[in-house]
Amino acid sequence: MHVIVTGGAGFLGSRVITALLESHDAGSLGFPVEKVTSLDLAESPVPDSRVVSVVGDVADPQTLSDVVETDTAAIYHLAAVLSGGSEDDFDLAHRVNVDATRHLLEAARALGTAPRFVFTSSIAVFGGTMPDVVPANLAVQPESTYGATKAIGELLVNEYSRRGFVDARICRLPTISVRPGRPNTAVSSFASGIIREPLQGEPSVCPVPRDTRLWLSSPDTVVANLVHAVRLDPAQLPGWRVLNLPGVTVTVAEMLESLERVGGAEALALVSHEQDEEISRIVRSWPGAFDVDRLLALGFRPDSSFEDAVKQYRDEFVA
Amino acid sequence: MHVIVTGGAGFLGSRVITALLESHDAGSLGFPVEKVTSLDLAESPVPDSRVVSVVGDVADPQTLSDVVETDTAAIYHLAAVLSGGSEDDFDLAHRVNVDATRHLLEAARALGTAPRFVFTSSIAVFGGTMPDVVPANLAVQPESTYGATKAIGELLVNEYSRRGFVDARICRLPTISVRPGRPNTAVSSFASGIIREPLQGEPSVCPVPRDTRLWLSSPDTVVANLVHAVRLDPAQLPGWRVLNLPGVTVTVAEMLESLERVGGAEALALVSHEQDEEISRIVRSWPGAFDVDRLLALGFRPDSSFEDAVKQYRDEFVA
Repeated sequence: MHVIVTGGAGFLGSRVITALLESHDAGSLGFPVEKVTSLDLAESPVPDSRVVSVVGDVADPQTLSDVVETDTAAIYHLAAVLSGGSEDDFDLAHRVNVDATRHLLEAARALGTAPRFVFTSSIAVFGGTMPDVVPANLAVQPESTYGATKAIGELLVNEYSRRGFVDARICRLPTISVRPGRPNTAVSSFASGIIREPLQGEPSVCPVPRDTRLWLSSPDTVVANLVHAVRLDPAQLPGWRVLNLPGVTVTVAEMLESLERVGGAEALALVSHEQDEEISRIVRSWPGAFDVDRLLALGFRPDSSFEDAVKQYRDEFVA
Repeated sequence: MHVIVTGGAGFLGSRVITALLESHDAGSLGFPVEKVTSLDLAESPVPDSRVVSVVGDVADPQTLSDVVETDTAAIYHLAAVLSGGSEDDFDLAHRVNVDATRHLLEAARALGTAPRFVFTSSIAVFGGTMPDVVPANLAVQPESTYGATKAIGELLVNEYSRRGFVDARICRLPTISVRPGRPNTAVSSFASGIIREPLQGEPSVCPVPRDTRLWLSSPDTVVANLVHAVRLDPAQLPGWRVLNLPGVTVTVAEMLESLERVGGAEALALVSHEQDEEISRIVRSWPGAFDVDRLLALGFRPDSSFEDAVKQYRDEFVA
């Protein structure tokens, strides 16, 4: 069978591809994977002969229908314009986050086999007055173009699934930290930057107040949960296919305490505070905690603690 | 100033046009209206020289940009494929309920003046496990293509408003009863039919169980609330512009009791019961009651009772 990963050259996409192949090789995926197609603006960096890179535009219907082949078991739709980029370019956000999603759903529908369809959404769909802990049935009230376009994507994917055109698993990701590499265009980029840069001996600016609560997941945990999502039998899933993936609740102050414990006072001293009103407005409109009992019962897992995520990063990426 | 009403030839659209002009003539609209353009597949039946009918496709971007002129104060976007039609034709529902909404929003955005934009949504956006009384922040979990496409429309209109491209008032309408005329393609068509047909001496079939709770509004009340929506100052409105319009909660059994009191035992005897599983599934996924305190504080009004709506229909339409 064939698995397609849009955004397969990206940070998350390349890790998902690697984890899917490892899971297949370990016999724990539940279906055979002979080929993984990465569709992205660049080639996937995953060095495996089963990975085929298609370099192209995810919003082009012809490219999508070429990629979606008859033996497609599953599609991971990860490609997106992130939160900062979406706020800067409203039209591009709609083109990629909404139109491309619909074109991909149409290509999947044309197969007639209802492939599994994993869509990554985000806690940025939320906004407005937030309860202390977000229940599964809280209304989305996005306060960013990214959140609005992801919320539209959720409704599209769920409806195509309800009609039997795909078999959806819509995963609302926590903010990912600690993310390796360079800052990106997500407004939450600082949530990795304030740990990653100081651990590398570089300065970092924190743009939000110290009491800002975040709902976080390490990259490894998010990837493991995304692989778990494709494995689940449809009978286990609720009718409404949107899943708030587990995370851990931490304040920025607590993140900095973890930084100090793992990296020392000299790491902490590299973080300066310059509040950015727009970033603070958007990030503080996101929830800081979720009721995930149903997700845990389905076998999804959070990190044991944020500090473990910091150590995970240090052990893997800091010389 | 100019007001545009899509679906202006329809049941609701023609009444909204009449009410807007009456409100203007009474000096209570808050802005002057020299012209109302009805955009629909037929001519608006409203006999007023200020009404201009454009007969065309609401999903055609060129038609929309021709209609949306520089002095446009307000747009009512009422045109839609209803619930039954949407379930029957998935693609048409997306073309009209989603794509046309976005094209119209784009035409409004091109003006650069952020016209008021009244969008009619529906309680059909809800589904899943329903609390006894629906709060303002309950998640939408549509169980019909109509509900899904309307929920997407809500997110689009709200986001265009948040970005300052339009000034949105998104009204989730109760089920309208008693609606004059013939049955339509809404799955809730029976909610008028079981009153209207018997009062005209004709038989009617009730396709849902008698304990089904409905959230209802008379046509006059819905139209008055839609005119009120355009009048409100943006400063009065919440940031999230979706409004659950007031209604009254009644069971089908209570509706039939009202029918008997207003039309007699001979009217009631014309109603037969043949349960339709698909109609019952969809209608029973909709909420039967809402918390509308905030709406009442904004000046929106429900009917005094369902029985008054039945009498309203009898006095106006039954000879």
